[in-house]
Amino acid sequence: MSLVLDLLGTFFFAISGSLLAARRGFDIIGSLLLGSLTGLGGGVVRDLILGVKPTAFANPAYLAAPLVAAVLVFFLSGPVTRLPRTLLVFDAGGLALFCVTGAVKALDLGANPVEAALLGVTTAVGGGLMRDVVANRDPQLFDPHDLYAVPAMLGAAVIVVVWLVGAYNPWTATAVAALVFGVRILSLRFKWHVPLAAVTRHTKGTP
Amino acid sequence: MSLVLDLLGTFFFAISGSLLAARRGFDIIGSLLLGSLTGLGGGVVRDLILGVKPTAFANPAYLAAPLVAAVLVFFLSGPVTRLPRTLLVFDAGGLALFCVTGAVKALDLGANPVEAALLGVTTAVGGGLMRDVVANRDPQLFDPHDLYAVPAMLGAAVIVVVWLVGAYNPWTATAVAALVFGVRILSLRFKWHVPLAAVTRHTKGTP
Amino acid sequence: MSLVLDLLGTFFFAISGSLLAARRGFDIIGSLLLGSLTGLGGGVVRDLILGVKPTAFANPAYLAAPLVAAVLVFFLSGPVTRLPRTLLVFDAGGLALFCVTGAVKALDLGANPVEAALLGVTTAVGGGLMRDVVANRDPQLFDPHDLYAVPAMLGAAVIVVVWLVGAYNPWTATAVAALVFGVRILSLRFKWHVPLAAVTRHTKGTP
Repeated sequence: MSLVLDLLGTFFFAISGSLLAARRGFDIIGSLLLGSLTGLGGGVVRDLILGVKPTAFANPAYLAAPLVAAVLVFFLSGPVTRLPRTLLVFDAGGLALFCVTGAVKALDLGANPVEAALLGVTTAVGGGLMRDVVANRDPQLFDPHDLYAVPAMLGAAVIVVVWLVGAYNPWTATAVAALVFGVRILSLRFKWHVPLAAVTRHTKGTP
Repeated sequence: MSLVLDLLGTFFFAISGSLLAARRGFDIIGSLLLGSLTGLGGGVVRDLILGVKPTAFANPAYLAAPLVAAVLVFFLSGPVTRLPRTLLVFDAGGLALFCVTGAVKALDLGANPVEAALLGVTTAVGGGLMRDVVANRDPQLFDPHDLYAVPAMLGAAVIVVVWLVGAYNPWTATAVAALVFGVRILSLRFKWHVPLAAVTRHTKGTP
Repeated sequence: MSLVLDLLGTFFFAISGSLLAARRGFDIIGSLLLGSLTGLGGGVVRDLILGVKPTAFANPAYLAAPLVAAVLVFFLSGPVTRLPRTLLVFDAGGLALFCVTGAVKALDLGANPVEAALLGVTTAVGGGLMRDVVANRDPQLFDPHDLYAVPAMLGAAVIVVVWLVGAYNPWTATAVAALVFGVRILSLRFKWHVPLAAVTRHTKGTP
């Protein structure tokens, strides 16, 4: 079950990567590679930190997700991407699923609760951060106009508690992911945000 | 033999990193570091995914390559880099050698054919991607005007087949690398390309 | 003792990350995340290369540093960050401590002297490089107007020698870190620099 959610998260993030590739004028192979990096990057970092073989390279099913995503974006991008928020919605889906599956994988491998929650957040925000960095774009993760890491932190913390009290199952996992997705989307819609990094905002300057 | 090809690939990529450093006005130490990242980065990621100690840190010969590259660029950059394509040629040499040596190292360590081909491509494109990202430049990997990942994918797939049929040896390895190099250079010369990520090209927009 | 210096380095780098977040207009969570990446990123890469569990995820004390840094920057950023060099000073503190603690950790785990020095430099420059890359800013590491990697290389080399002759203790470690800090700050003040990457400087051009 966790595998299904993880593959779905991979697929959603891969779609976001391929959509960004389309928007930036990359070719179909660039779309496949940016989708792969987005969909698989966070999980690879999590697995390296956990000291296990990255699933993305061990299970071929993980490679199908970016392939399907790149093909779909190639053929459907007209109608789909004309809606400006499409990329953000798929990205939110990946974020929601990965904070859950990332934390649960860490717990399954014996991580303590704090580490598991951190790895859930790392998995959730890692792929999108790599996508934005290699595509030379200001990362969504640092956009102060809405909440990005906060719903992932919330979801990772909640699923760790759910797992600790023995209530983890496909339904609770899906419910937590839906909560994260909802908070992320609502924060975009209603411009929910947290305070800036500094009480006194500074202008961008050297150095 | 694989070591010789791998060191040569490291050297070629290191030259491309040092040439970019020269072009960007970095100093000689920045040249050494950017050359090291370019030459060693892809292999370090491959080795971490394979779960082995990165050779770049275990074998001092790998450190000599970026040192020599930085010194050569320092003294020869006038005549060499005035040819605008020099960086691209060295980068193509690294790409050609690393898709072969990366895949073969994975096979030697017991990876399955698909994983080995993927790791060959990762090794080949990883260093150049890191180079372009840290130097704050649109990655060559995503340039839609020529083929970059495609020849590496081709080379990794071919060498895996060659290895599986028991025909891997220094000559076949060199032949496959030459094929990859040729395709890459011809794609630059004749602007070979693949279709864009989306049928309908979109303008760059927010977000 | 090494732990104290390492935590202090984490804290200094985290401050530099949170200050950059403030300057770029990120929110408080972006400040926490950029501080965490800066403070913990170099050590995570070092530990992955060494094949050990990253301490950042194993010891909760390492998480306290970016938390405290983000809170401090939030409340104190007015008076502190108005001094334009504040970020550079904290960054220099992290650099000085991490080239020492990174090299010593590698030596403790059985690395040879060359590898230990390299990992000291990697630890020292890694976090700041990641900070600048994800914040979409030209890396300090490549700024040719002062010395950044050079003092870290010096410090890593010196501490390896100190360790080899059996003179490593809290006082010598602190002295080497102070030396690195001093060289870095003096290079900023007096614009010490090394030659450019190429004798003939080239203009930035495509590609």
